[in-house]
Amino acid sequence: MDVPRWQDVLDAHERIAGWVHRTPVLTSRAIDRIAGCELLFKCENFQKVGAFKFRGATNAVLLLDPAAAEKGVATHSSGNHAAALALAAANRGIKAHIVMPVTAPEIKKKAVSGYGAEITWCKPTLEARESTLEKVVSSTGATFIHPYNNFAVISGQATAAKELIEETGSPDIVMVPVGGGGLLSGTAITVKSMSSHTRVIAAEPEKADDAYRSFRTGILQPALPPATVADGLLTSLGPLTFRVVREYVDDIICVSEQVIIDAMRMVWERMKIIIEPSSAVPLAAVLDNKDLFAGTRTGIILTGGNADLDNLPF
Amino acid sequence: MDVPRWQDVLDAHERIAGWVHRTPVLTSRAIDRIAGCELLFKCENFQKVGAFKFRGATNAVLLLDPAAAEKGVATHSSGNHAAALALAAANRGIKAHIVMPVTAPEIKKKAVSGYGAEITWCKPTLEARESTLEKVVSSTGATFIHPYNNFAVISGQATAAKELIEETGSPDIVMVPVGGGGLLSGTAITVKSMSSHTRVIAAEPEKADDAYRSFRTGILQPALPPATVADGLLTSLGPLTFRVVREYVDDIICVSEQVIIDAMRMVWERMKIIIEPSSAVPLAAVLDNKDLFAGTRTGIILTGGNADLDNLPF
Repeated sequence: MDVPRWQDVLDAHERIAGWVHRTPVLTSRAIDRIAGCELLFKCENFQKVGAFKFRGATNAVLLLDPAAAEKGVATHSSGNHAAALALAAANRGIKAHIVMPVTAPEIKKKAVSGYGAEITWCKPTLEARESTLEKVVSSTGATFIHPYNNFAVISGQATAAKELIEETGSPDIVMVPVGGGGLLSGTAITVKSMSSHTRVIAAEPEKADDAYRSFRTGILQPALPPATVADGLLTSLGPLTFRVVREYVDDIICVSEQVIIDAMRMVWERMKIIIEPSSAVPLAAVLDNKDLFAGTRTGIILTGGNADLDNLPF
Repeated sequence: MDVPRWQDVLDAHERIAGWVHRTPVLTSRAIDRIAGCELLFKCENFQKVGAFKFRGATNAVLLLDPAAAEKGVATHSSGNHAAALALAAANRGIKAHIVMPVTAPEIKKKAVSGYGAEITWCKPTLEARESTLEKVVSSTGATFIHPYNNFAVISGQATAAKELIEETGSPDIVMVPVGGGGLLSGTAITVKSMSSHTRVIAAEPEKADDAYRSFRTGILQPALPPATVADGLLTSLGPLTFRVVREYVDDIICVSEQVIIDAMRMVWERMKIIIEPSSAVPLAAVLDNKDLFAGTRTGIILTGGNADLDNLPF
């Protein structure tokens, strides 16, 4: 699989422009004072389906040729990628087949079926997901859209950082959380193309530090059994995203659960916006490493707003 | 006491412009679909101190002549007006004396003292508040800034609706919640001056329906013992705000607690922004009376975002 180049990001941005929100960049003097630096928050929590994932899913769906599109798209996911793919497919008027574990949160099930996707239920194991998806794909001919290890998805996710830099100039640092690395690799491609002196730093929960260990050892590490409140970051890097991360990312910082929860609450209280736990991980890394960020202008992509209001971590 | 005229609102807006945020107007296609009308949300939850109250407090503080300013300002409040007056005073470099009941929420106490105000504690009764305030005023010479029954405060609150109409043209209806009526009377003055065909409709919790009863009977009704989740709306109209409400307001609609809570949650979930319960009352009135609003363009002022994250009503 090829790594997307800058031209692919430019094409993706043009392709998805009519479908995705150009989300605002917000600032908070109160949080800047606490952090000791200037933070620029790109609010993908305001994106359609409440997450940046809609960018990549939309790009992937629009890139299908008519024959493939007619057979629909498929994926397995219990999270934001499922809802994103469901809506992107509905927008093009094609079918989305989503394999979901029976244990997925009620609110995610409702979102996915609300967008008209066909849900196939499976047991909550990776094996069950993958074998069920294989059956769905072979019986329907649908195209599998991987949530992150996918050329079109990465190119789409890369457009968030493009808008951030267009709006704010060249920050010293751009930060995103890392799970499977789709947003991180897209962001890295964009940042290094638009503003070569800007550093790209990822943030990861200590309790799901596989990307950190892959980055340090140079050998792709599998995800450990998930144990973090940041439920969007449980996956491990894929071969494609790992290649981009090794080439372009400057550093990965790990943070504890409590620091993530405190950072999430700080955004809710000070900025009056709702972000999900995964979105709080970069701010947590800043607050936990103030010396590293002192005096910088640092852009942070707030990845999503689909917090479970019945199970808040604070 | 005189009723503010349109020119007073124009003056107030110019006076406070450098101090208050020009907050955004947000829309939500998802909520529009549910409500059956086009809603324009003026986001005063993003205002400084997290509430529109900062507009009126700032105008009142800036209007003081130098001799009065030197002696500071005073009020009794356990809510957003206390924080707003504290910050407005700090911005002018003068003292704020705030009388607060010992039972005020920890987070409000911290906000007020964080802005450098001097807090005088009292028992949690209206009598104790008023007698304590009287002592503070007579010993300091500070100017009492009433939270709503005050010419300068009303003129300041009126500027939120001015920005809403400037940004969106002439909506068919503008809605605000009503407690003491400072925002409502300011809004009514603005709306009838800028867009005479636009209706002004207030929304009030059934469990604190004193403004509704005052409006219907023409006789100022006292607040009943408070029992609503909308803790910003416990006060009753004052003589000045009642005069404006009778003259300019088209209607007041009452809503039940459950509808308020559902509307609040809907804004959190669909718009990913944090509003306090009082802010949800107008949307609750729309959702509870869809026939009245069908097909209209209706502006709603989201009054504040200081929700107590440790005691959510849902």
